[in-house]
Amino acid sequence: MPEISPLQKARAAYQPRLPKILAENGPFAQAQLGEPTHSVADQEAIQKLFPDTYGLPAIDFVPGSPRETAPIRAGVILSGGQAPGGHNVIAGLYDGLKKLNAQNQLFGFLGGPSGLIDDKSMLLTDEIIDSYRNTGGFDMICSGRTKLETEEQFQKVMETCQRHGITAIVIIGGDDSNTNACTLAQYLVAQKAGIQVIGCPKTIDGDLKNKWIEVSFGFDTATKVYSELIGNIMRDANSARKYWHFIKLMGRSASHIALECALQTHPQACIVSEEVAAKKLSLKQIVDQLTDIVVDRARRSLNFGVVLIPEGLIEFIPEIQTLIAELNDLLAKNQAAFDALPDLEAKVAFVEERLTPAHKEAFQPLPAAIKAQLVGDRDPHGNVQVSKIETEKMLAEMIDANIRVLNATEPKKLKFSSQCHFFGYEGRCAAPSNFDANYCYSLGYTASALIAAGKTGYMASCRNISKPIDQWVAGGIPLTMMMNMEHRHGKDVPVIKKALVDLEGKPFQTLVENREAWAKGVDFRYPGPIQYFGPAEVCDLPTQTLALEHL
Amino acid sequence: MPEISPLQKARAAYQPRLPKILAENGPFAQAQLGEPTHSVADQEAIQKLFPDTYGLPAIDFVPGSPRETAPIRAGVILSGGQAPGGHNVIAGLYDGLKKLNAQNQLFGFLGGPSGLIDDKSMLLTDEIIDSYRNTGGFDMICSGRTKLETEEQFQKVMETCQRHGITAIVIIGGDDSNTNACTLAQYLVAQKAGIQVIGCPKTIDGDLKNKWIEVSFGFDTATKVYSELIGNIMRDANSARKYWHFIKLMGRSASHIALECALQTHPQACIVSEEVAAKKLSLKQIVDQLTDIVVDRARRSLNFGVVLIPEGLIEFIPEIQTLIAELNDLLAKNQAAFDALPDLEAKVAFVEERLTPAHKEAFQPLPAAIKAQLVGDRDPHGNVQVSKIETEKMLAEMIDANIRVLNATEPKKLKFSSQCHFFGYEGRCAAPSNFDANYCYSLGYTASALIAAGKTGYMASCRNISKPIDQWVAGGIPLTMMMNMEHRHGKDVPVIKKALVDLEGKPFQTLVENREAWAKGVDFRYPGPIQYFGPAEVCDLPTQTLALEHL
Repeated sequence: MPEISPLQKARAAYQPRLPKILAENGPFAQAQLGEPTHSVADQEAIQKLFPDTYGLPAIDFVPGSPRETAPIRAGVILSGGQAPGGHNVIAGLYDGLKKLNAQNQLFGFLGGPSGLIDDKSMLLTDEIIDSYRNTGGFDMICSGRTKLETEEQFQKVMETCQRHGITAIVIIGGDDSNTNACTLAQYLVAQKAGIQVIGCPKTIDGDLKNKWIEVSFGFDTATKVYSELIGNIMRDANSARKYWHFIKLMGRSASHIALECALQTHPQACIVSEEVAAKKLSLKQIVDQLTDIVVDRARRSLNFGVVLIPEGLIEFIPEIQTLIAELNDLLAKNQAAFDALPDLEAKVAFVEERLTPAHKEAFQPLPAAIKAQLVGDRDPHGNVQVSKIETEKMLAEMIDANIRVLNATEPKKLKFSSQCHFFGYEGRCAAPSNFDANYCYSLGYTASALIAAGKTGYMASCRNISKPIDQWVAGGIPLTMMMNMEHRHGKDVPVIKKALVDLEGKPFQTLVENREAWAKGVDFRYPGPIQYFGPAEVCDLPTQTLALEHL
Repeated sequence: MPEISPLQKARAAYQPRLPKILAENGPFAQAQLGEPTHSVADQEAIQKLFPDTYGLPAIDFVPGSPRETAPIRAGVILSGGQAPGGHNVIAGLYDGLKKLNAQNQLFGFLGGPSGLIDDKSMLLTDEIIDSYRNTGGFDMICSGRTKLETEEQFQKVMETCQRHGITAIVIIGGDDSNTNACTLAQYLVAQKAGIQVIGCPKTIDGDLKNKWIEVSFGFDTATKVYSELIGNIMRDANSARKYWHFIKLMGRSASHIALECALQTHPQACIVSEEVAAKKLSLKQIVDQLTDIVVDRARRSLNFGVVLIPEGLIEFIPEIQTLIAELNDLLAKNQAAFDALPDLEAKVAFVEERLTPAHKEAFQPLPAAIKAQLVGDRDPHGNVQVSKIETEKMLAEMIDANIRVLNATEPKKLKFSSQCHFFGYEGRCAAPSNFDANYCYSLGYTASALIAAGKTGYMASCRNISKPIDQWVAGGIPLTMMMNMEHRHGKDVPVIKKALVDLEGKPFQTLVENREAWAKGVDFRYPGPIQYFGPAEVCDLPTQTLALEHL
């Protein structure tokens, strides 16, 4: 058994809190059914695809008395990227199931959806659960990225469950995984398999969010870890007064993480991809705007600052988006000739010669290292690996190039030195904050209550979570309610609508109201590390995003 | 006034603790003089250079009664790189001085030594001090890297002090800054200037350490921040099970930071530069050893791990050290021809043609990006910028190359994917841990007591600091006692001996005892974020390095 750190030991003893209804009634709380629901869009198409699970009522829990329930076996999987608190979802589910009936059993399927398909599981015990309470990571049963979407896979899942006598599966995942959970639920109902499917909203990216799911778990902890580090770097920037720090933040397409970190720390600039797309900003415009901020500060001897960059930025810059598409196409068509070229510079030249004029114009000003990444690093399908493009270095180098041009005529030379960072893995597996520890445990516990109520095709939900936990509302939301039709990979498919940053929303508007002042001054805010044991105003605050969205 | 985060607000109220003698007697504790001392080496030469400050007795404090003291004015500077707790040194000094006599004044000189030379200062007030208590960073008065070493500079410092009526200066810095403090103290005594000089041991690198100075401040906090992040990444590695993380850690030449983080987190490998130098390991040997660890795990489907790399590694690899020297020489001699070359590949070829055979052999297997860094990025003096070489990427790429070779004959292909990180700025300005908050405050307070005792040429010291604070021993150590002669930039100069990792010491030996098991298994230890408010065993533990060195 590996050595446990003192904090882990102390933290293992933390008993996560539950919404009042569950704290008082346990998983015996009764499911109170609301009105029938509709999908957020494309009602007709969604109803057709989910005839048995469409239109289910939303569920709130009301008091209920302990009752005898027949013993059940349930399964759980973690799906997709890690997020702080996954273990607590499982612990909440486990505790709820055991409270329903001490004979209940919970199987953890290993390595994500593939564990369910290939029947690789582990019976979870008190000892296992106890050793993972309030810990970060997904290492208890691990996760995986297999997509559960074909009928053949559904069939295998059904067989796996039948083999073990499992009558309920909890799928802990992001928008894609919950989309798949929705389809699986419909399949199993149609098959009359008697197997319930319940989803739980997981992702640090914060893009699984809607009227009923106020936030996905993990967003709180991950953004707090990143904000701690950004604050520390800001102190350094303000002490050394000689560097601009360009910090790229994980979060895939959506900019929720960058935005939340900006609200927490007050950087000189925070790029929001959704704004770039809405305003159709070119890379040159973005670089010029940042250069203006740098120059304005340099002229006032403030040769330092912090710029936050969302991971997905590059895909939102119109001309880079189409450049990448053309590059993928070009390289696919000329693969043999391209691969035969002796070195990277020849490859870059090869590409430059063949790009259409507009894309040539977009490609040429890029720094050499970025050109090399666009041309050199391709995935097994031959596509540009967008996620590996070091946008933080790209922006820093392009600003540097701008400053060099200005310095040719600037009476007092402008100073600009940069440091680049990328934060992602530092926060995805942090031990959950009190918020996430409680939220995750409550989601898992809610899932057990939905199982007890015999429901399928629901997502466990806790609402009103920007308020103290005794005001949280536990319930279940029909998965079909969050669906719409989208065009993906050449066909229309039903998916849970991904939440990008709402440019009219209060979080982004708060950035807009403040960013000019932050750009000019030194308004850094230092959140510090996540605290578990101190005063409530230090330990239990939700994210600014959540607070602002639910003022 | 920028917004204050809830943690900062709560933390501002923390009252750092003092060693018993200072807690009970304040700065009125009496200086008890020990036996005359000697420098650690080269006694004759050191004595000759420091005739007035050599051989001073070490000081311990004993009880003393409050007494009236004449009002004094003192100055303080922060010198060199940031370290957590610098503001608390100033706060401790301020509080001690005010306790001695409410009329006492403390001037903060701005931007490091240059503030003292150019007379840029700020009178520190209750309001200023209070707003920086227990905060990270050096932004209260900022730091600088000007070296205080010429007689002309000393003269200016003296004039600055005389202009303000300042009779004591506290220099908060690392080994170089305290070496300079020693020389300044001697100068001012010789000039009969009546200006005392007291040093304080600062540096996250942990390389200012000896029999009397158990650790420099900031090491505790910085290594705790890095260990938090490393632990989080380990959870991720153990959850995703598909990446090797190569993490470079700040710390200049010494490997204390990497070693401490390894003891905290139990990685698959931690390179210690001092061992590389002692065993004269070539880069190939290092890469081959790491490859063996990767391969052994890959064959057991453990396709993940964490490798810690000290910042200074590259300078300790014998053939790279001499390669860099030859490169600097070669480029200096052929600058015009070299600068005229059209691109990086031509420059690399130019260099390869001209290197001596042994260095050509060392240069050729390096990854292209590293060659480019060695050849392309040079400092204003034309030298290779060693600190910018991405050793973490170099090692990852060279292991990858090894694995490709092995895979040509391996029956089941070995998997190897890597992610690279560099942690430095994330920890240098973190808010100090309880340990550093107390230690720094105590050092500053001790400095005030040394000033009250009329001493000069001393470093403030707290010993026995691996024990609870009521057992800490406050005192003063003659700066000359830590000096020896070293050959630097072509001449013999007196310097404070830099402490590299002791390969016979308990911390390194603990790594040696465990590293084989850590390499093979999954023994990760997750320290978590610094806690300020929890149980003592979570909040107040010193580093493993300190604990092991003072068992």
